[in-house]
Amino acid sequence: MRAYDVIYKKRNGQKLSKEEISFMVEGYNKHEIADYQMSAFLMSVYFQNLDDQETFYLTDAMANSGEILDLSFLDGPTADKHSTGGVGDGTSLLIAPILASCDIYVPMMSGRALGHTGGTLDKLESIPGFNVNLDIKEFISVLKKNKFAMIGQTKEVAPVDKRMYALRDVTATVESIPLICSSIMSKKIAEGAKNILLDVKTGNAAFIQEYERSKSLAEKMVSVGKQFGRNMTAVITDMDEPLGIAVGNSLEVVQTIEALKGKADNDFVQLSIDLAAFTIQQVGLVKTFEQAQKMAKEKVVSGQALNKFIKMIELQKGNPKVVDDYSVFGKAQNVSYVKAKEDGYLKFSNTRNIGLASCMLGAGRLKVEDKIDPVSGIIIYKKTGDFVYKDDILFELHHNKTDINDVIEILNSSYVISDEKTKKNKKIKYIVN
Amino acid sequence: MRAYDVIYKKRNGQKLSKEEISFMVEGYNKHEIADYQMSAFLMSVYFQNLDDQETFYLTDAMANSGEILDLSFLDGPTADKHSTGGVGDGTSLLIAPILASCDIYVPMMSGRALGHTGGTLDKLESIPGFNVNLDIKEFISVLKKNKFAMIGQTKEVAPVDKRMYALRDVTATVESIPLICSSIMSKKIAEGAKNILLDVKTGNAAFIQEYERSKSLAEKMVSVGKQFGRNMTAVITDMDEPLGIAVGNSLEVVQTIEALKGKADNDFVQLSIDLAAFTIQQVGLVKTFEQAQKMAKEKVVSGQALNKFIKMIELQKGNPKVVDDYSVFGKAQNVSYVKAKEDGYLKFSNTRNIGLASCMLGAGRLKVEDKIDPVSGIIIYKKTGDFVYKDDILFELHHNKTDINDVIEILNSSYVISDEKTKKNKKIKYIVN
Repeated sequence: MRAYDVIYKKRNGQKLSKEEISFMVEGYNKHEIADYQMSAFLMSVYFQNLDDQETFYLTDAMANSGEILDLSFLDGPTADKHSTGGVGDGTSLLIAPILASCDIYVPMMSGRALGHTGGTLDKLESIPGFNVNLDIKEFISVLKKNKFAMIGQTKEVAPVDKRMYALRDVTATVESIPLICSSIMSKKIAEGAKNILLDVKTGNAAFIQEYERSKSLAEKMVSVGKQFGRNMTAVITDMDEPLGIAVGNSLEVVQTIEALKGKADNDFVQLSIDLAAFTIQQVGLVKTFEQAQKMAKEKVVSGQALNKFIKMIELQKGNPKVVDDYSVFGKAQNVSYVKAKEDGYLKFSNTRNIGLASCMLGAGRLKVEDKIDPVSGIIIYKKTGDFVYKDDILFELHHNKTDINDVIEILNSSYVISDEKTKKNKKIKYIVN
Repeated sequence: MRAYDVIYKKRNGQKLSKEEISFMVEGYNKHEIADYQMSAFLMSVYFQNLDDQETFYLTDAMANSGEILDLSFLDGPTADKHSTGGVGDGTSLLIAPILASCDIYVPMMSGRALGHTGGTLDKLESIPGFNVNLDIKEFISVLKKNKFAMIGQTKEVAPVDKRMYALRDVTATVESIPLICSSIMSKKIAEGAKNILLDVKTGNAAFIQEYERSKSLAEKMVSVGKQFGRNMTAVITDMDEPLGIAVGNSLEVVQTIEALKGKADNDFVQLSIDLAAFTIQQVGLVKTFEQAQKMAKEKVVSGQALNKFIKMIELQKGNPKVVDDYSVFGKAQNVSYVKAKEDGYLKFSNTRNIGLASCMLGAGRLKVEDKIDPVSGIIIYKKTGDFVYKDDILFELHHNKTDINDVIEILNSSYVISDEKTKKNKKIKYIVN
């Protein structure tokens, strides 16, 4: 077999075998197949697609480029959750302690902020001392003690994905449903949880903005996960406006703690409860979704989830005092405000720009090597559908910058104010399982 | 500008500007753009095509990666000819001396055999002593003395094409009309002739077998050449059966010499006369195509073309005695025959296999680094439409091999014998100018 033949076959729209796909991935992983052949292959996949079986083969080969974690020794169900990324989308931080309180093991390996979206690891690292770089042994130890642990992907997890993604990133082959699917799922499969919940964002601040493409991705990921024998649920959720009221690292952790204290009840909290409920129901702790929602809420109201969260911070060397004293996070030097210039109904028309604005304030990364400012970010005062008066505060900006004119400019292009009231989108648009 | 943006734009089917295409080609030529980005770009071109203007920009950028020969100092018209390659397709050897006899300068840079097709340089090198590796100064000197010279492409001619072609060859992006067009035309443009004749082969032994695609390529090359201000003619010719009766290097030179002596009149000779006539007419020596054909024939009958051919051999250090004594070429140790197994009408159904058989006998190359045996090859006794009797000789094989069973097998799968008489194809199927 030659790489040429596999590229040629896919280029011509033919279906590839398990052997052909493994040959490409293994060869690339061993540096026997060159970048230029892999990039041509990826571009041919972009145009000719992979069906669910081919995508399974690809995911399998990628997962097997490293180790596949075996969590069967744990004495309870295991669950993992992944979001395709959004603005203010910090649900993992709230869902994980809720599920852990239900005696579900949550071995969670997360990613970092990039572009307009945030990353769970950066949020956790805003807690002074917090260590996301546990090795597998430490990870399992925390998991056993507290039912959940939150770390970065270890180098054993689908290592070929990192190289393939970097190649896609510079060859315009990121936006391919089967390639996105195999990149996400190869890692989720390798991470070993039996139950996998996928939050596929759709809307103007999602990586995949079009609803139909979001649905295709959700369906493909569920199909692939099932071929591995995992219990799968994918939920397509709205990303036409920011989720919750905080965008930024420590700001989002504070939002999570407030929610765990039962002090917040916004769309961020409601969606997190619902997402947790999907897993609770899937694992079989209750029969109906309503019962699962109720259980999730109880874990918050009773303070059990907060206790789990505090213990996780302790076990991962963070300072648990942040929970009672938010000043432990530190504070940005400056707080600035963006106000409404007229009366009318607000509508977020380009939420991606809020993510970019937060990134420009220091909360995110435009390039992989950029440094994060953990305390910077944006508090959102109004949401789509709200009526605002001239000079009402729309955004509160936390930052250590001297000039934020460009940030204000980009924020002002994230919304429109008009006489027409826009109906709020339902957060959950579609469920695949 | 980034390579990513250009790939992205073409991937999405948008038209590229002159600047964008130059950026890719120049960047690649300077090793500033990586192979993996170029291969992704080439695959996106494969799928999204380039229009005639974009193909012109690409050709221009490729031609300008080296030097563009300025032949305007010559005191007469300049003409070049290119064939997309076939089996027994040695027309250049006959056309060039005919045109030179008409006082048309023919500065011809040719290629080598690869796969099932032969190459002009290998044929010329079967003449003992013949030197195809002249530098530009020597090339011009021979050209001035004898009106034509035949050499290999110098390193100054569109050097980026060599790297781009090698990359296409291993990434399944060879079969793209705009990429084939720019590869051929960048070299033809750089070689500097004002009049360019293209012989685009179609049929079962052509690189592009489908007539419609051959036509697209012919039309694109003519369009691109005209955008450079060159006089263009493309002729689509039949490659459903071998041209002429000889396949192999010295065998094809002998066929040419026989034709120049006026001793042969087969389809090879007729097509060569016609192709020469297209240029004679284009250059403006005569008004009608019939007058041009007459002039070409006269140059053969009068012996002027033969004299030009002999003088070219002398000027390029070959032994001109080959013209009078074919034994100077040397002889293959073995001559074997393939005979008809039944009575019936012959039809070449897979002429490509005749090219491969000749290659297996030593006359060609399966890989670029393979060595050529100049005296090996195949003489073809019968053509499509001929009635053959059992045991009639179909092929005469010249070779230095001990076992030719696989060659005979592949030759036997190149034709069928049946009760049905297949009509011979017209050699010239379509003309674009």
